[in-house]
Amino acid sequence: MPKEGSNPARMAGIRSVSRIFFWRYGFLLVGLGQFDAVVGDLAGNAARMRKTYEVALDSDADIVVFPELAVCGYPPEDLLHKGNFTQDNRLTVEKLAADCPEKTLIVGFAESYRGRTYNSAAVLEGGRISKVYRKNLLPNYGVFDERRYFAPGSEPVLVEVKGMRIALTICFDIWDTEWLGAFLKDAGEIGMILNISASPFYVGKIAKREEIIGRAARRLNCVVGYCNLVGGQDELVFDGRSMFADSSGRIVVKARAFDEDLLVADVAAGAGGRVRVRPVQPAAEQPADSLDEIYRALVLGTRDYARKNGFGRVLLGLSGGIDSSVTAAIAAAALGAENVVGVTMPSRFNSMETVGDSERLAKNLGVEFHTIPIEPMLKSFDRALSAVAGWDSGGIAYENLQARIRGCILMSLSNQSGALVLTTGNKSETAVGYSTLYGDTAGGFAVIKDVPKTVVYELAEYINRISGRAVIPPAVISRPPSAELRPGQKDSDSLPDYDLLDRILRGYVEEDSSADALIESGLPKDVVQRVIGMVDRNEYKRRLCPPGIKITPKAFGKDRRLPITNRYDGGSDTA
Amino acid sequence: MPKEGSNPARMAGIRSVSRIFFWRYGFLLVGLGQFDAVVGDLAGNAARMRKTYEVALDSDADIVVFPELAVCGYPPEDLLHKGNFTQDNRLTVEKLAADCPEKTLIVGFAESYRGRTYNSAAVLEGGRISKVYRKNLLPNYGVFDERRYFAPGSEPVLVEVKGMRIALTICFDIWDTEWLGAFLKDAGEIGMILNISASPFYVGKIAKREEIIGRAARRLNCVVGYCNLVGGQDELVFDGRSMFADSSGRIVVKARAFDEDLLVADVAAGAGGRVRVRPVQPAAEQPADSLDEIYRALVLGTRDYARKNGFGRVLLGLSGGIDSSVTAAIAAAALGAENVVGVTMPSRFNSMETVGDSERLAKNLGVEFHTIPIEPMLKSFDRALSAVAGWDSGGIAYENLQARIRGCILMSLSNQSGALVLTTGNKSETAVGYSTLYGDTAGGFAVIKDVPKTVVYELAEYINRISGRAVIPPAVISRPPSAELRPGQKDSDSLPDYDLLDRILRGYVEEDSSADALIESGLPKDVVQRVIGMVDRNEYKRRLCPPGIKITPKAFGKDRRLPITNRYDGGSDTA
Repeated sequence: MPKEGSNPARMAGIRSVSRIFFWRYGFLLVGLGQFDAVVGDLAGNAARMRKTYEVALDSDADIVVFPELAVCGYPPEDLLHKGNFTQDNRLTVEKLAADCPEKTLIVGFAESYRGRTYNSAAVLEGGRISKVYRKNLLPNYGVFDERRYFAPGSEPVLVEVKGMRIALTICFDIWDTEWLGAFLKDAGEIGMILNISASPFYVGKIAKREEIIGRAARRLNCVVGYCNLVGGQDELVFDGRSMFADSSGRIVVKARAFDEDLLVADVAAGAGGRVRVRPVQPAAEQPADSLDEIYRALVLGTRDYARKNGFGRVLLGLSGGIDSSVTAAIAAAALGAENVVGVTMPSRFNSMETVGDSERLAKNLGVEFHTIPIEPMLKSFDRALSAVAGWDSGGIAYENLQARIRGCILMSLSNQSGALVLTTGNKSETAVGYSTLYGDTAGGFAVIKDVPKTVVYELAEYINRISGRAVIPPAVISRPPSAELRPGQKDSDSLPDYDLLDRILRGYVEEDSSADALIESGLPKDVVQRVIGMVDRNEYKRRLCPPGIKITPKAFGKDRRLPITNRYDGGSDTA
Repeated sequence: MPKEGSNPARMAGIRSVSRIFFWRYGFLLVGLGQFDAVVGDLAGNAARMRKTYEVALDSDADIVVFPELAVCGYPPEDLLHKGNFTQDNRLTVEKLAADCPEKTLIVGFAESYRGRTYNSAAVLEGGRISKVYRKNLLPNYGVFDERRYFAPGSEPVLVEVKGMRIALTICFDIWDTEWLGAFLKDAGEIGMILNISASPFYVGKIAKREEIIGRAARRLNCVVGYCNLVGGQDELVFDGRSMFADSSGRIVVKARAFDEDLLVADVAAGAGGRVRVRPVQPAAEQPADSLDEIYRALVLGTRDYARKNGFGRVLLGLSGGIDSSVTAAIAAAALGAENVVGVTMPSRFNSMETVGDSERLAKNLGVEFHTIPIEPMLKSFDRALSAVAGWDSGGIAYENLQARIRGCILMSLSNQSGALVLTTGNKSETAVGYSTLYGDTAGGFAVIKDVPKTVVYELAEYINRISGRAVIPPAVISRPPSAELRPGQKDSDSLPDYDLLDRILRGYVEEDSSADALIESGLPKDVVQRVIGMVDRNEYKRRLCPPGIKITPKAFGKDRRLPITNRYDGGSDTA
């Protein structure tokens, strides 16, 4: 067993390597150091890598691998246009090399070379940069804009460690197996491909990654060591789960999900030209299912957004509804209940039941709780607005006003206390604009913005299950959803059933299906057309919502870039 | 003279061609039809082109040219990912060809071809698509994301009309003269290059365009006919000013600025291998100077955002300050004074003078005006918020609250009346975050978001000059700027002098200069560092501001994409 006293792994919060394992094998020990890089924090990221390196040294790893653009974080976006940025990247890598001379390191960084900028992997050996691999395939779709910044590399780069020849690749390079085979055709015998990645999470992505990594291993008949980033960065969460595939394409071992880790494995050539992988650590626990994945992504995304932006505390409105209840539970898990403040802001339209449920939820979670009735403000606005002809105290403007008063209260408390306001809108209502701009959308971070309403319900059940008790009161889950902005209001007055709505939205938003394709698939024509119209009309509102965590294949935000001014009706067939 | 009775030009609001001119020459008459395309409005854009085509027919033009992506508008963004979009583009082009069989047309459209998407120019001849040119150079910087959508073409396409061989190019293709020379090297003798563009406006861009168009004409020894888009699209304004250069590189004639037009010229081979251009219309008026350019861009951008999104009326807060006064004047010019509503919302911190000036301005402009004092709401919020420990009625949260109450009032009136709320923040305060999120930033469109404060003052003087009277009261221009959120407050309490601030911002934001470069250029170190810190910290706030009109080389928005979560301090030298 490792010496626990001065164990650098333990100090760094990284899993240590049991010497029992690698004493038995120990041909080539490869460490994949997935860590939570902070965008722009070059010195801090280097310090994090040095810490992992110490653990790796203690584990006798021969080569230590860090993720894509580990030095500057991913994605650095237009920081790449700043005068000193690539120069600072290089200085940081050179210093890291000097600090870590004993082993071979692979480190992602943003590189200026002969007047162009590259997404590069530096090979650090003997205290200096010995080689640089430059990413060839630059993704420029979905959330990716790499051709805005980078020129493509063109040459393979191989490193030899303990007699094993290792080819370097960066993220998307490995997703096109045929291209990769052609690219490495003349590279000679390769024992392992290392891939450094910054692959953002969405539900189900891990299966795709495993498939392409296995396919590349089989195609090149070698081990693939895949080192992914971990952590939240604005809209994106990187889920880690670095892994090794052996030359048969089998995924042999995976690192932790949604957490830092150093995954060490023993790689060696076996019989018949095979290359095998042997884990030298106990297996890291993996998410049980997709709900577990989503929950962990939301917790990490919220924690990192707050932490990396200097917020210790968060603040949110608690309505006694499902969205704010789930958001509050995630916030408490992310930051500790003591750092969450819930505020209920009832009007005369809020029932005793929902107000009571918001308080019960706060008590169950153990978060600070305040009640600020909004009637006095509502009355004073109503009186003032009556001065303008046409003001209607029973109309939609009056409903929205209530949400805006609540937004004012939360933002005021945020300004006063320095806490970050979390908004509580889900993907379904964000899609159709069932929200008040500058009202319930007012805040700094939108935790469940990419979570469809039907999944919000599943998350509530999941949270109660893992808590071992009804943290979220059962009535919150069973009560028909309502914005409570007028007497007896129900979501179902304005929206189709959430089951149906979410099916239409999945097709239209996430899969870019046209109205006629959705109708042909059996969805009701009138509802499809109504929903699509709402989605299209509300692009302006979504633009003005805070960022939130991407958990689906296509989130609102930089994943889906539609013009606000847009008269396209989705296709000639339905015109 | 043209027959005025049934003149299609007059009906369409397009300049007609004087027959006196082209009867005298008339070798090859080329018409550049710059029109205001609406993104996604395929049928509407085709109708606009047919209207221009009728004018061109009446003018005996031999070839009629429309801008880049004229069929779908520019930029269509992720509409290009929608199932039917490129198919609908093709159907629209085919129908347009059938409707306009008499002449040769060049029409930009989004094309699907063998499984890839192209930014293409269709040649319409004899009622059908005879050829397609596919854009080669795809810009992927600044506001452009063309590699997200398009594959590059590879082949030159030439059209022959009345014996003249014409090469087609699309926008960026012509900006790299060396590349263009090589691309057309084997194309044989070329009399004219047609370039269809969607080139967004910023101050000074016209000079760059003229330079590259002249250079291409000289390099290829031919005429260049350049047809640019016109109109506002979200953040962008296209300024038209289509033009012809002769083979000596001289810009012979330009179309209208910021307005639709059909520019017709007579192109013919001259002596010594030269190709000459003769205008056949009186010269179109051009902007007098850069202030005139900015003013027209803001008016067109505001008019088109409102009109294309279905808003007949706009609403804004009038504080008696310079920003809201200039914004109101632009709104009145864009939509007519009768469609502008100004609201002054004084608290006890607003002086009699500013309240009076807001009313004077409204009267001078002739816009509807309301006064809604905010004290009652301020009192009721203050009382309610006092329930939470730590609330401070003299602090920054209390200042922001005033701005948020005003935001609530404007958004409520907007919901009630259907008018669009214009925000009034300038680029200087947007840059440093001198604004209240969800307060004065609450609205739908931010007219002067990209106008530095120093230029706002110049615009105010300009507006009074072109109005021939002090529409904006002189005191509004001469009074030291203040947010009036606490007694005696001045902008200069929190910010450096606007002259200095704008110089720092121009360097840091528009030119990506580092702090040390700015300091070396002679700007004061402490101010530079403080301003840069403010700019970096307020990225989150800018993300949540409405879109506004780009008038500088680099605007906030899709022009400048910085991470919110970002610890980069701008370079090691100033760390």
